[in-house]
Amino acid sequence: MTLTGMMLIGAESHRGRNGEIHAIDPSTGAKLEPAFDGGGAAEVDRACQLAWDAFDRFRETAPEDRAVFLEAVARNILDLGDALIVRAMAESGLLRARLEGERGRTVGQLRLFAAVVREGSWLGARIDPALPERAPLPRPDLRQRRIPLGPVAVFGASNFPLAFSVAGGDTASAFAAGCPVVVKAHSAHPGTSELVGRAVQAAVAECGLPEGVFSLIFGAGSSVGTALVADPRIRAVGFTGSRRGGVALMEVAAKRPEPIPVYAEMSSINPVFLLPAALAARAEALGKSFVASLTLGAGQFCTNPGILLAVDGPDLDRFVASAVDALGGSAAPTMLTPGIHAAFDAGVAALAGNARVATLARGLDGDGPNRCRAALFATTADAFLDDPALREEVFGAASLLIRCPDLESLRTVAERLDGQLTATLQMDAADTGAAAVLLPTLERKAGRILANGWPTGVEVCHAMVHGGPFPATSDGRTTSVGTAAIERFLRPVCYQDIPADLLPQALRDGNPLGLWRRFDGALGRH
Amino acid sequence: MTLTGMMLIGAESHRGRNGEIHAIDPSTGAKLEPAFDGGGAAEVDRACQLAWDAFDRFRETAPEDRAVFLEAVARNILDLGDALIVRAMAESGLLRARLEGERGRTVGQLRLFAAVVREGSWLGARIDPALPERAPLPRPDLRQRRIPLGPVAVFGASNFPLAFSVAGGDTASAFAAGCPVVVKAHSAHPGTSELVGRAVQAAVAECGLPEGVFSLIFGAGSSVGTALVADPRIRAVGFTGSRRGGVALMEVAAKRPEPIPVYAEMSSINPVFLLPAALAARAEALGKSFVASLTLGAGQFCTNPGILLAVDGPDLDRFVASAVDALGGSAAPTMLTPGIHAAFDAGVAALAGNARVATLARGLDGDGPNRCRAALFATTADAFLDDPALREEVFGAASLLIRCPDLESLRTVAERLDGQLTATLQMDAADTGAAAVLLPTLERKAGRILANGWPTGVEVCHAMVHGGPFPATSDGRTTSVGTAAIERFLRPVCYQDIPADLLPQALRDGNPLGLWRRFDGALGRH
Repeated sequence: MTLTGMMLIGAESHRGRNGEIHAIDPSTGAKLEPAFDGGGAAEVDRACQLAWDAFDRFRETAPEDRAVFLEAVARNILDLGDALIVRAMAESGLLRARLEGERGRTVGQLRLFAAVVREGSWLGARIDPALPERAPLPRPDLRQRRIPLGPVAVFGASNFPLAFSVAGGDTASAFAAGCPVVVKAHSAHPGTSELVGRAVQAAVAECGLPEGVFSLIFGAGSSVGTALVADPRIRAVGFTGSRRGGVALMEVAAKRPEPIPVYAEMSSINPVFLLPAALAARAEALGKSFVASLTLGAGQFCTNPGILLAVDGPDLDRFVASAVDALGGSAAPTMLTPGIHAAFDAGVAALAGNARVATLARGLDGDGPNRCRAALFATTADAFLDDPALREEVFGAASLLIRCPDLESLRTVAERLDGQLTATLQMDAADTGAAAVLLPTLERKAGRILANGWPTGVEVCHAMVHGGPFPATSDGRTTSVGTAAIERFLRPVCYQDIPADLLPQALRDGNPLGLWRRFDGALGRH
Repeated sequence: MTLTGMMLIGAESHRGRNGEIHAIDPSTGAKLEPAFDGGGAAEVDRACQLAWDAFDRFRETAPEDRAVFLEAVARNILDLGDALIVRAMAESGLLRARLEGERGRTVGQLRLFAAVVREGSWLGARIDPALPERAPLPRPDLRQRRIPLGPVAVFGASNFPLAFSVAGGDTASAFAAGCPVVVKAHSAHPGTSELVGRAVQAAVAECGLPEGVFSLIFGAGSSVGTALVADPRIRAVGFTGSRRGGVALMEVAAKRPEPIPVYAEMSSINPVFLLPAALAARAEALGKSFVASLTLGAGQFCTNPGILLAVDGPDLDRFVASAVDALGGSAAPTMLTPGIHAAFDAGVAALAGNARVATLARGLDGDGPNRCRAALFATTADAFLDDPALREEVFGAASLLIRCPDLESLRTVAERLDGQLTATLQMDAADTGAAAVLLPTLERKAGRILANGWPTGVEVCHAMVHGGPFPATSDGRTTSVGTAAIERFLRPVCYQDIPADLLPQALRDGNPLGLWRRFDGALGRH
C-alpha cells in the first residue's frame, strides 16, 4: 500500500491544508516521505459530525456484530504485512522484534475486546421486577443497562505506535463500548497511522457500519487536538502522553459547556523498593535485572523504573556495583523522536548538575543522532523529600536511587510520592513484615503493585490495571490497559415500566443475549 | 436528646466560633433554637485529619463488620424516635407522613447497602492466574480488586433532610465503599443534622471503629464547603443541590493540585412526552395525575416534571382543561426555606412575564409565609427553542407545556434539551412507533426513562439510575440513588505476583469471602 499523506474522514481520503508534517527517522535524522497535510477546524467538524451521525446506529449493533468488526480490524492490520513494520521502524527507531511484538499485542487486544463484547457483562444488566402488591406503594419494573458515552477522541502515543495509537487500547475499548472514534494521529508516526487507519476504515466498510465510526486526522501543534476535545459531539477523550499535554486536555474538557471525562495516562516514576532480605540474598542479580528493565526500549515506557528505594548499607552497595557494571556496558539505542531525546538529555543534565545527586553510572555513548545514553543517579531520602524536581519523570533510561537510613524512612518517602502507575517490591520471605507495612501506602499511591518482577511489561488481560491516582493519570478510577478499560466509555440508563417491545435486547425477559444479569440484586444468567 | 448546637469532630462535640446559624420554621418564619455555631478552617483540618487517619483501617474492615456498622447507623436513627420527625418538620415545613416515609427510606438504604457490602461484587475481584509455560513470555499472576478512594465530603441537601443529608444516600454509599465521611450540614436543618449525626457518631463508637470515620461540620455561606473540597485529604465529593453550587464545587475540585471526582446532582427539568394515542385515550386522567406529581411535596423534587411536550390539538386541550382544573384547586404547601420560596416566586414571575409564555393556571393562594402557589404555563416549540431561559429549572411546583406542531417537532425539541435525570413517555400501544423514534434521543439525554408513570418517586434498588448527563449531574457515568452508587467511591488496584499472605482476602486462593470473581475472564464463585 502506497502512503498518500491524506487524512481519513469517514469513508473518504482527504487532503489537509494546514501545513506539512514529515516523519523523521530518528536513527538518521532524515526526513521521511511523503508529506502529511495537517487538518484544521473543517476536518474536525466533519469527522465529529460523521461520528455523531454514526453513534445511534453503531451503539445498537448486536454484540456479535461489534465483535466481528473488532476482529476485522485485527485481521486487516495483519494483512498490512511487513510494510507496517518497516514503516514503523523507520518512524520510531524501534527494533523489528519489538514492533512485531507490539503488533501482536495490538491484534491480541482487539480480539480480547471482541471476546469481552460477546460475553456482555459490560452491559451491566440489572432487573428489579415490579412488585405490584407492595404496600404502601407498589414498585415499578426497573431495568438498567449501560450505553456508550458517544464519540471518543483518541490521541496516538509516541511510544506505542501500534498498541496505543490509531487502533490501540483506547480505540479498541471505545469501539467495544460502542463509541465511534476520531483519532488525532501522533505526528511522530503519520505513515504508521495512515496504514493502520486504512485497515480500520476498510473494516468499517466491510462490516457495513456507518462511515463515521472512524476518522483519522493529522495536525502539527495542539490546535487540532484542542478543537477535537472542545467539540460538543465528542463525549470522552483517551490520551497517552506527557503530563503537560494531558493536563491541557483536562482543562479544555472541564471548560466545555458540557464537561466530559478525559482519560489521560501521563506521568509516573514507578518506585521500586529493594527490601533488606531480598538485597542480602540477591543484590547482584537484582542489579542486573534492574538495568535490563531500565534500558528496555531505551526506557521509553510509562512503567519504566524511575526511582529505587532501599536502606543504605553493604548489600545495597553490592546492588549498586552490579547495576553500575551492567549499565556502564549498556548500548545506546535510538530514541523515538528528536524532541524526546532532547528532553531526556535535559532531564539527565539537570540530575547530574544537582548538588545533592551523585551520578553513579552512564551507559555507552551512541553512534548517531538521538541515542539514549542510560543514566543511574543516587541521592538521599532527605534530599528527595526536600526537592520536588527529583520527583519529576525523566522519560527514558534514567533512574534515581534513594538511599534511606532505615525502613521507616522508606515509608516516609513512599507517603510523599505522587500517584503512580506501578509500585514494585523486591522482597524475600523475611521481608514480609516490611512489605506489609508498605502495602497500604502503595495501594493508595499506585494502580499496580508487583513483587519480585519489574514494572515494564504490561499484560493485556482482565485483572490488569494500567492507571493510578493523579498525575499518573487524570482519573485513577480506571485503567487504559486490559478489559476493564471498556468501563471508561459507558454510563448507566434505567428503564422504568418500558413496554417489552421497546426494551433493549439486554434487558428483555428470557435473557435473549444470555447475559449475566443482576436480578433483584442476585447475579446469575437469569 | 437535647440539641447542643455543636459540631461532631470525630468522637468529640465541638463548639464553633464562626457565626451563628439558626434554623427557620418556614411555616411561620420563626427562628428555631438553639443556635448552631459555624466551623472554619480549624474544624475542616481536624475532621479531615481524623478521616485520613481512620482511612487505612476503615477500608480494610471485613465486609461483615462494615455491614453491621451500616445497620447500627440505621438502628440508631430509628432510636431517635419522634424527636427526629418533630425537629425535621419544624426545620423543613415538610409533613409528618412525608418525613416518616423519608426516614424509612433512609434506614432502608443503609440496610440495603449493608446487603451490598456483604454480597461483595463491589470488590470487583478478578484473577488471571500465572502462565509460567507461556511462550515467548510467561504470564505473571495478576489479581485485581477495588479499594475506596479515601475520605469523602458529603453536602446535605435541603430537600431531603434525612434521605440525602447526614446519613443519606451519599454517606451510606461512601461508608459501604469503605470511605470515611465528613458531612457539611445544610444550614436549613442543623438540628435534624445534629440528631442524625449523633446517631452515626454513636454507631462508630459502638462498632469500635476509628473516630475519624465520621464528622459533621456546620457553616453558613460557602467557605467551609470550599475548604473541605480543597483539602488534600478529601478524595471525592457527594453533593445534591443547585447547579450554581455544584459547578462551584466542580471548579474547586478541578483546580486542586490533585483533582478529585465530584458527584453533584444538580438540575433537571424532567421532560414528559404526552404521545397522541395516550392523550386521546385518557387526557383527563393524565391531567389529574400530572398535577398530583407536579405538586407533590410542593414540587421540591429533583425529578419534578418541569416540562410537558405534546402535539397540539383537541386531545391536548382536554388534558389542559383537566390539569388547569386540578391545579387551580391545589393548596399551597410550605416550601423548605425562605430562599427557595423567593427563588420559586422569581422563576414563576419570569415565566409569567415572558411574552411568549401563557399562564394557564395558578394554584390556590397560601395562608402564611413561604407558600408554594403552583403554576402551569404554556409556550410553543419555536419559543422554547429560541429562548434558553425557558430551559432553566424552576425549583418547585411549576411546569411549562410546550405545544408542538407535530411528532417530528417533539423530537427536535428533545434533541435540544440539556442532560436530564429523567424523561417520561405517556404512551399507549399505538404510540409505540413514536416512542421508538424518541427513545435513542432520550437515552442520550437522561439517566432514567419511564413509561406511563411520573418521574417523582425514586425507588432505592439495584436497577435505579438517579443521574444523567451534565447539567443533571456533574458525572453522568454514575447514580446517586440505588446500589450502583457505591461504584462512585472505588478504584481498581492490581496485584502482580504478590505473595499469598500479603494478598487481600478478596483475592486469596480458595475464595474465603465467597465472592463472585472473574477468573481468566469467566465470572463465577471461584
